[in-house]
Amino acid sequence: MNLSVAEISRHVQAIVHGDSQFIVSHLKSLEHAEAVDISFVNGEKYLAQALASKAGVLIAPYALVEQLTPHCIVLEVASPYLAFAQLTHLFARPVSIQGIGETAKIHKTAKIGENVHIGDYAVIGEHVVIGDNSIIFPHVHIDSNVTIGQFAYIESHVTILAEAQIGEYVRIHANTCIGSEGFGFAPYQGRWHRIAQIGSVRIGNNVRIGSNCSVDRGALDDTVIDDGVIIDNLVQIAHNVQIGKHTAIAANTAIAGSTTIGQHCIFGGCCAVAGHLTIADHVQLTGMSMVTKSVSQSGTYSSGTGLLENSAWKRAVIGLRQLSETPVSKIVKQLNSLHSRIEQLELSKPFIKPSNDE
Amino acid sequence: MNLSVAEISRHVQAIVHGDSQFIVSHLKSLEHAEAVDISFVNGEKYLAQALASKAGVLIAPYALVEQLTPHCIVLEVASPYLAFAQLTHLFARPVSIQGIGETAKIHKTAKIGENVHIGDYAVIGEHVVIGDNSIIFPHVHIDSNVTIGQFAYIESHVTILAEAQIGEYVRIHANTCIGSEGFGFAPYQGRWHRIAQIGSVRIGNNVRIGSNCSVDRGALDDTVIDDGVIIDNLVQIAHNVQIGKHTAIAANTAIAGSTTIGQHCIFGGCCAVAGHLTIADHVQLTGMSMVTKSVSQSGTYSSGTGLLENSAWKRAVIGLRQLSETPVSKIVKQLNSLHSRIEQLELSKPFIKPSNDE
Amino acid sequence: MNLSVAEISRHVQAIVHGDSQFIVSHLKSLEHAEAVDISFVNGEKYLAQALASKAGVLIAPYALVEQLTPHCIVLEVASPYLAFAQLTHLFARPVSIQGIGETAKIHKTAKIGENVHIGDYAVIGEHVVIGDNSIIFPHVHIDSNVTIGQFAYIESHVTILAEAQIGEYVRIHANTCIGSEGFGFAPYQGRWHRIAQIGSVRIGNNVRIGSNCSVDRGALDDTVIDDGVIIDNLVQIAHNVQIGKHTAIAANTAIAGSTTIGQHCIFGGCCAVAGHLTIADHVQLTGMSMVTKSVSQSGTYSSGTGLLENSAWKRAVIGLRQLSETPVSKIVKQLNSLHSRIEQLELSKPFIKPSNDE
Repeated sequence: MNLSVAEISRHVQAIVHGDSQFIVSHLKSLEHAEAVDISFVNGEKYLAQALASKAGVLIAPYALVEQLTPHCIVLEVASPYLAFAQLTHLFARPVSIQGIGETAKIHKTAKIGENVHIGDYAVIGEHVVIGDNSIIFPHVHIDSNVTIGQFAYIESHVTILAEAQIGEYVRIHANTCIGSEGFGFAPYQGRWHRIAQIGSVRIGNNVRIGSNCSVDRGALDDTVIDDGVIIDNLVQIAHNVQIGKHTAIAANTAIAGSTTIGQHCIFGGCCAVAGHLTIADHVQLTGMSMVTKSVSQSGTYSSGTGLLENSAWKRAVIGLRQLSETPVSKIVKQLNSLHSRIEQLELSKPFIKPSNDE
Repeated sequence: MNLSVAEISRHVQAIVHGDSQFIVSHLKSLEHAEAVDISFVNGEKYLAQALASKAGVLIAPYALVEQLTPHCIVLEVASPYLAFAQLTHLFARPVSIQGIGETAKIHKTAKIGENVHIGDYAVIGEHVVIGDNSIIFPHVHIDSNVTIGQFAYIESHVTILAEAQIGEYVRIHANTCIGSEGFGFAPYQGRWHRIAQIGSVRIGNNVRIGSNCSVDRGALDDTVIDDGVIIDNLVQIAHNVQIGKHTAIAANTAIAGSTTIGQHCIFGGCCAVAGHLTIADHVQLTGMSMVTKSVSQSGTYSSGTGLLENSAWKRAVIGLRQLSETPVSKIVKQLNSLHSRIEQLELSKPFIKPSNDE
Repeated sequence: MNLSVAEISRHVQAIVHGDSQFIVSHLKSLEHAEAVDISFVNGEKYLAQALASKAGVLIAPYALVEQLTPHCIVLEVASPYLAFAQLTHLFARPVSIQGIGETAKIHKTAKIGENVHIGDYAVIGEHVVIGDNSIIFPHVHIDSNVTIGQFAYIESHVTILAEAQIGEYVRIHANTCIGSEGFGFAPYQGRWHRIAQIGSVRIGNNVRIGSNCSVDRGALDDTVIDDGVIIDNLVQIAHNVQIGKHTAIAANTAIAGSTTIGQHCIFGGCCAVAGHLTIADHVQLTGMSMVTKSVSQSGTYSSGTGLLENSAWKRAVIGLRQLSETPVSKIVKQLNSLHSRIEQLELSKPFIKPSNDE
């Protein structure tokens, strides 16, 4: 890439310790950086690794500047991890989709903004609106009446249906489906009667949805993903779910229908959240958590068993089954009762300590 | 939409209490309905909400008619939820795919029924059969020799392979793959030797499969999904699985190979069902159930731990590990033994109760 | 198919017991084979089933030849399951994609090998390299600078991005995405700041990836899947994961970022492996395992609770919660203390056994 230290420091608002004319080639991990590369030191615990790194330039916090300057050029910043995040955008390759593919099928009533790039074989339906500076990859299908704000980034094979309303700076990764039909059926006389879903999906600004996700349209009201929410891959968002601002959801998690999730929550991967619940703001779930009741207090929650060697696990599972027959509370009660009776015995008069000479 | 109460009542076979000429604009939830809208009251527990609703028309059971008629027009039905399901079809917008897209690539040997709609860039292979009144979205790929019955609805980016046989009134949502290769490999001398899968997939009538699902073809015999089965998003159906009539499977559940599932089962989300099992009819699994053995009795089954505050959870996990070393049965045995010995002590002759004056 | 026993025996290196001119029609399961079909007997436990089968030809190990030859033609092999795997390739139908679809959009700088088949509406970007004898299904999008070795098999709606490097004999099933952006965000002042991912994906030879999978590109370094790895459907491989040779991963499993997995591991379905861990070679995880710490010893590991009838499960969950308050170790300590005190009492002098005549 060949960027000078001066350019980089302006981009991340850093104080330069060393040669600001030095030319940087790549952004690399501490481990793989060479003398022409830049890397970052995310706090004191990476100091030893930083001192061992061959990187010619390091982004570091104030506290580490003195120790690092003898070894390399240092860019001092308040948050090295944030500076690293900002820097990645300088070093990322531009997207390959340029202009509007001649085979993109764009309905004549669609309103495509300025400087929009659309890949080959994309299909854009009637009355669709796409904001300025958006990038639509090949094979995307945006169905009629969908509205997408400016600076959207929508990867290949994404499907957007249900007249979804999508904000600005939204990124949707490959093979994800927004606005397919919610799983709503009325059981009646042993049959499932389909409930046509007539709600939609509303997605705020700065939302990120990973690849292979499903975000269903609402039954009557809308499914809502608020500003700044980030969602990993293979995540299920059922109909009428509402997700509050700046919440993060890791891969393979499923949120069942009509559940409302607060702001600034962080859900680990493979969580299962049941339907019709309310989860408070600032709730963190560790990976594989099973949520069957509403959570009203912020905090960190978990479920699942730890990993055990297989035969120990089998015994633990039997133990758990036994617990369902003999609760711990009952054991404690029995222990207490035995304890009292022993105390009584010990206190009883004729009692004589056994002698050693016996 | 502007439908009269009379038209609506005919559609759901309701008795009208009030003005049958009243014109309804939308079908809404009790909460969001306005005076021109219709909503439904799914039993007594929604009565308070119904009385507070602004809806001009309510669908309700006989038992609530008297209480509701002073407030609005009432459509009396046996099952308000079923009536609601039926009503959604009146208010749903028509699908945007009309006619056969000029860029749809349909093999000349394919047999396309009457009144079939096919989106742009769909690819339909050799000898494919598609029944009357079916809707195929853009970018669908239906590979050679697949047969699909009438009134199919197949959303964008669906892939259908393996000469699958699909019944009537089947709905397959976006980005789902039917008939990809089962995960079959023979381990031999530290390598995995691929077993080409030569079975197919057979799907009955009135089946619904959500978005981003995988239904693999069988190894030798077929994978079979019977009539009336409904499947949510991101569900894995492995090779040679058989699913009985009217079973429902919620999102992110995985069914491993050669497992047979009965009729009228309901599986919650995120369940994992191991391979080569048999699950009886009318089995219900709560979300995140782990099934490692066959289930021969109908009933409701569960697994997993509840959600705990993180530090309590850590202690519970340690507790479970300890259970694998010290089973509850052993504790109970020890308790019983101590109990007998105390009893013996208490019964022993010279024993004198401690006096209070001591 | 009509293959002679002689041809088949050459293909699987079998010794023929019986008529080598016999013509075989299909490869079938023991249960469904007819007199014109071939099947296989995978060890002694299938002997009874084999003797009951109508199959005209059976592949069997040496140990069973004598018992089977009175009933049918026997092909004796060292590993019947391996021979079956090899045989499936003879009986599999050829792939429908032939030649290069006239609508395939191939950039003029792409290098397409000899005898490559590409389906309609596939999009192949700038400087892409595709090795000889590869098959690319319709609607595949291979973005610029991706390299794919010979004999690749890439199904419909696959997306390959990030200049991924893919080896020989790689199979990628429908709707899978390779090289989408890793889930990397720097949290700062309540916002998520996107870390553009500038690493890539490297996939070795003979790798198999199922349908609807997500394999993300690395943040700085690459995500790596080594030779011979097999991955089922709906699997999440996060950024910077490394998977060692010949490891197998079943459906719906998620591996979080920067985790390194050894060689010859076998992970069951629906496992969740946390990020930044190291898993040793030859580790087996049973289905739904939750891995939150590194595993340094080969062996089989498990987690989760067994399946319980719902009301027993509810009691077990309460039991587990109680364990977090009253650890088993504490109960054992109390039992031991009571035990000593009883022993003391029993040993104490004046103690007289209760007489029966009392």
